[in-house]
Amino acid sequence: MRRLIVGDVMTTDVITVTAATSFKEVARLLDENDISAMPVLDENGRIVGVVSEADLMLRHEYRDTRLRAGWLTSSQARAVHTKVCGVAARELMSSPTVTIRQTSSVAEAARLMDVHRVKRLPVVDGDGRLVGIISRSDLVTVFLRADDEIRENVRREISQRVLLTETGTVYVDVADGVVVLRGELDRKSSVDIAEQLARHVDGVVDVVNQLGFDRDDSENRIAWRIGTT
Amino acid sequence: MRRLIVGDVMTTDVITVTAATSFKEVARLLDENDISAMPVLDENGRIVGVVSEADLMLRHEYRDTRLRAGWLTSSQARAVHTKVCGVAARELMSSPTVTIRQTSSVAEAARLMDVHRVKRLPVVDGDGRLVGIISRSDLVTVFLRADDEIRENVRREISQRVLLTETGTVYVDVADGVVVLRGELDRKSSVDIAEQLARHVDGVVDVVNQLGFDRDDSENRIAWRIGTT
Repeated sequence: MRRLIVGDVMTTDVITVTAATSFKEVARLLDENDISAMPVLDENGRIVGVVSEADLMLRHEYRDTRLRAGWLTSSQARAVHTKVCGVAARELMSSPTVTIRQTSSVAEAARLMDVHRVKRLPVVDGDGRLVGIISRSDLVTVFLRADDEIRENVRREISQRVLLTETGTVYVDVADGVVVLRGELDRKSSVDIAEQLARHVDGVVDVVNQLGFDRDDSENRIAWRIGTT
Repeated sequence: MRRLIVGDVMTTDVITVTAATSFKEVARLLDENDISAMPVLDENGRIVGVVSEADLMLRHEYRDTRLRAGWLTSSQARAVHTKVCGVAARELMSSPTVTIRQTSSVAEAARLMDVHRVKRLPVVDGDGRLVGIISRSDLVTVFLRADDEIRENVRREISQRVLLTETGTVYVDVADGVVVLRGELDRKSSVDIAEQLARHVDGVVDVVNQLGFDRDDSENRIAWRIGTT
């Protein structure tokens, strides 16, 4: 089974701006297209930054504060000053930009968003050119797979990877993305593998493992582990 | 002139869930309504948390990691574990929730969002009951005021607060939210006040101050300041 990749769920119709786009035009484009950020492209279609709702918010926040560039000493304070006073995308945007390739996994996209605290990632090809954008909301849709589809995937995985070499029966039920595994397998290690296979299927919210086993082979595995350390 | 408050720009039609709402139902509601978060309410309509796209993302991110509650020692790690493994809103949500009152200013809403790193704030009444939600996109729309409307506001402010007590003429032009002030006033301090009044008008992106003055009274002000400290 092929796991979902960024290219499967990304949006390819991306609204972009240039470094010269005005503050108000940025606000208008975000509002009209109901989006929270846009990549800023140079004349060669390469990404130079991302401008977001958050970048416009500083204008509200510091409106009551008299900011004078001369007062600011730290580089962080100067960066805030540029954003607060900027009237074009080049001053408002955040850069450098964290990007992702379309062949990357959905899990990797989620990890990058979390680590870098961003809500979306521009997707680039090998030449650094924009091919799409993936947002948290695209990742949310992965969880909307139909239960039937998830069940078929889980059954196929367990049939092909466990039941070919193992005696036993596995029943798979899925409700609201939660997979319930029932039945019996020969070895305890196979029960664990079946659960892991189910967890890796796209759209699975949780796995309730009620599989029984005839033989607990976990002692062998522990012995083997100790033997190799 | 009354400045815009939270109640003017908030959304009153709020999609909410309860603590028992399932993971998949949360994903479905976020997707169908094209929103990124929802307040979680108790049976009395009070907010117990907020569940967002970000809370669902952890499921993608940690899918390949075997998490066992027993391994986790820090309270932070346990909180992540609960979110990763949670199948209902009560386990997924973030709490306590930062809220705001509808009488608060738009600037205060922007400040709270920045300080607490959230994209929206539930709006509550005096009894802590939900009356709306204000998001960054609601704050972006403040910048979409028509230039004519902004110009009228700036002119009225300067007429009522500067020109009643000051001789001179002020011409106000607005293009793409950027206010240009031209003309001449008697004192330099009045020129500064005119600029500040313009900056405080909702929807103003920047002020270009080209006002001239007859008399530089800034030395007097400095002397007065020194005298009072």
